[in-house]
Amino acid sequence: MENTEKNPRGIATAASQAAVDVGRASTLQKNAAIHAMAAKLAERQGELVSANRCDLEAARASDLPEKLAARLGFGKAKISARIEALGRIKALPDPVGAAHGTKLRPNGLAVTRVRVPLGVILMIYEARPHVTVNAGAFCMKAGNAAILRGGSEAAQCNGILGEMWHESLEEADLPAEAIQVISGSHEDVAELLHMEDLIDLVIPRGGRGLVETVTKESLIPVLKHSAGVCHVYLDEGADLDQATRIVLDSKCLMPEVCNAMETLLVCERLEPHLPQVADALQAHGVTIRGCQRTTAAVPYAEPATDEDWRTEYLDMIVSVRVVEDVDEGIEHINRYGSHHTDVIVTESRSRARRFVREVDSAVVLVNASTMFCDGASLGMGAEIGISTDKLHARGPMGLNELTSYKFVIEGNGQVMGAPEDWRRGLTP
Amino acid sequence: MENTEKNPRGIATAASQAAVDVGRASTLQKNAAIHAMAAKLAERQGELVSANRCDLEAARASDLPEKLAARLGFGKAKISARIEALGRIKALPDPVGAAHGTKLRPNGLAVTRVRVPLGVILMIYEARPHVTVNAGAFCMKAGNAAILRGGSEAAQCNGILGEMWHESLEEADLPAEAIQVISGSHEDVAELLHMEDLIDLVIPRGGRGLVETVTKESLIPVLKHSAGVCHVYLDEGADLDQATRIVLDSKCLMPEVCNAMETLLVCERLEPHLPQVADALQAHGVTIRGCQRTTAAVPYAEPATDEDWRTEYLDMIVSVRVVEDVDEGIEHINRYGSHHTDVIVTESRSRARRFVREVDSAVVLVNASTMFCDGASLGMGAEIGISTDKLHARGPMGLNELTSYKFVIEGNGQVMGAPEDWRRGLTP
Repeated sequence: MENTEKNPRGIATAASQAAVDVGRASTLQKNAAIHAMAAKLAERQGELVSANRCDLEAARASDLPEKLAARLGFGKAKISARIEALGRIKALPDPVGAAHGTKLRPNGLAVTRVRVPLGVILMIYEARPHVTVNAGAFCMKAGNAAILRGGSEAAQCNGILGEMWHESLEEADLPAEAIQVISGSHEDVAELLHMEDLIDLVIPRGGRGLVETVTKESLIPVLKHSAGVCHVYLDEGADLDQATRIVLDSKCLMPEVCNAMETLLVCERLEPHLPQVADALQAHGVTIRGCQRTTAAVPYAEPATDEDWRTEYLDMIVSVRVVEDVDEGIEHINRYGSHHTDVIVTESRSRARRFVREVDSAVVLVNASTMFCDGASLGMGAEIGISTDKLHARGPMGLNELTSYKFVIEGNGQVMGAPEDWRRGLTP
Repeated sequence: MENTEKNPRGIATAASQAAVDVGRASTLQKNAAIHAMAAKLAERQGELVSANRCDLEAARASDLPEKLAARLGFGKAKISARIEALGRIKALPDPVGAAHGTKLRPNGLAVTRVRVPLGVILMIYEARPHVTVNAGAFCMKAGNAAILRGGSEAAQCNGILGEMWHESLEEADLPAEAIQVISGSHEDVAELLHMEDLIDLVIPRGGRGLVETVTKESLIPVLKHSAGVCHVYLDEGADLDQATRIVLDSKCLMPEVCNAMETLLVCERLEPHLPQVADALQAHGVTIRGCQRTTAAVPYAEPATDEDWRTEYLDMIVSVRVVEDVDEGIEHINRYGSHHTDVIVTESRSRARRFVREVDSAVVLVNASTMFCDGASLGMGAEIGISTDKLHARGPMGLNELTSYKFVIEGNGQVMGAPEDWRRGLTP
């Protein structure tokens, strides 16, 4: 048994069998497993903190980039946050079995769309042990089996979290294989990505390299959680205080997340006020890379290259460009952006409307910070990630986005043809 | 210009530019193009019929399988049916811009999910010139640009239909490249399947070989319209007259379509009545291949092999198996079926419920013919095809299934952090 669990086909087969049971499990059972996991996080907190310390030491010894190491942290505060998050996921309504209103057709057939689980979800991510907690709970609550492949940097911590899921599921009388935390080699992962007969969806979450490799390799449908090159466009006549607040929040609150602002676009009519906004950014420690007009107006701005407009810094850096008007702003965003999250700050109703319609992004905001691109802010309770794809799910993904549906049709003997039509087969 | 239209990148680039305009076009404009196309089908009917005659002759000369040749027909009756179908598509509500109820969040943000087009859709299909009419109208009405690659068997007919779309779009002041009917080589198609930067979705529609090749080759997301191995399960205590009607309609009305019944499963308690159902099938010209118990009860039944349970005959053939009970029936369907369309005929409420929950298919029916797996029957007005995938769309696909969505968030200066939080970047 232990042997089969270690090889990729064994893992996927076990997941696929577990998916049948977890797909039919009651909400109470699934919630019981989430509850047990939360209890274990509290009980074994000390063990997790020291495992995380080992991971961090190993990471520093092997020269892991500081940014990745920062995401690897799983101390007391992060563990408490996870316990709270599990409480929120437990409280979310179960999407499985939800019926989207029955339509009675003229012939008497009753047609209902019913939500069903997707099946087996393979999640591939870097660092961030908290994903092991979150994604497991999310996939399972939506009735799916999850295969979670975290980065080798988080091996110790993920190992313990995997054990804890195993026990939590068993305590709730669910198959332990409904959430498998694995640490296979790149070859093993490549093998999994070819098992379209057993796995229904792959979600890669991490840097551009990871996402591209997975997309190329996979025969299974992929939901990309790719880079966020997010913009704030300051329109002519924008309220400057409001604009500055939104710019600072979008850049400085959490510069390391995918929905942080990377490029600030300023309408040329606002150019006289550009130094004021730039000063506020600089005062908060942000480095500015600007177009020619920006460097002319802001002495400490470095010149930006064409590459800067496409760059996700995830850092206290911002690129700044002066544009003629909202049209040039929209064009810049659709051309250089990553269709993730973009903001217009404006007092004009017609330009707000144009921006919202024409910017081709998952989340488009008027007079609000990019930080609100997040499942909790949008009323989904929590999120498993932010899709940069258009198919199936776009933007923050909640429980519903981890399900599919089936059509259920109830009749009392309806047929489409008349008996004389059933002879058609006889006359080719 | 003509040259760029012929090479794959030129085609995809033109489609991607046209998608921007058609995505922003009004419903009236899109309906005008559909109306113009319907008028042209009527006007140039004679020309289409003789082009189709050429295609048919060439097909017969090159020994095209008779089944494929049958689908190639595009005579007066089929053209009239297309004109009617265009009228129905024109009458459907435009999905683009539809808002799914605005939620006001506690912080005053107004969050709305708004439907948007997918972008560029590449459709690859065999024979059937009617798809060139239908799919073009469907994709365009949902605000997308379409690249339609029909089979070489239908080259003459598709060429004229392509010209007609070109003219119809121009008459409606829409870019002619919003619907491009192409006839490129397999190498050209392979090139298109690698342009994930320009094309948003691929829909292959045809035999298993076509669908598998496209799925393997494509870097673009694929929505498979694959085989239909559909079942009718006759439960103990089923009304025999009703059961026979449903079986005959599911098999004999249109044996060539993907939702025709291919396997009949009979509960062993109904075994004494099996000859009666088999006789009705035989009387309508259906060949029966059965399990051992079937061949014992029905003298003219041929023995079925394991391969038969997985076969989509698309013909006047049915495989028949006696199963112990509903559980064995469900197991057979989930194991051998193609997760397409399956029926239970029963008077038992509890077994109907179990069948509906546990059969993992896009469409599950109780006491009705498999023929009702169809967009019009389900109230979608019409359909562009039937997805056998779970992601994005499952079962019959209407206009909504050819769209994505974006989140639109309107605020009045909301930020997430307090000013002291914006200093975080300063203290790593």
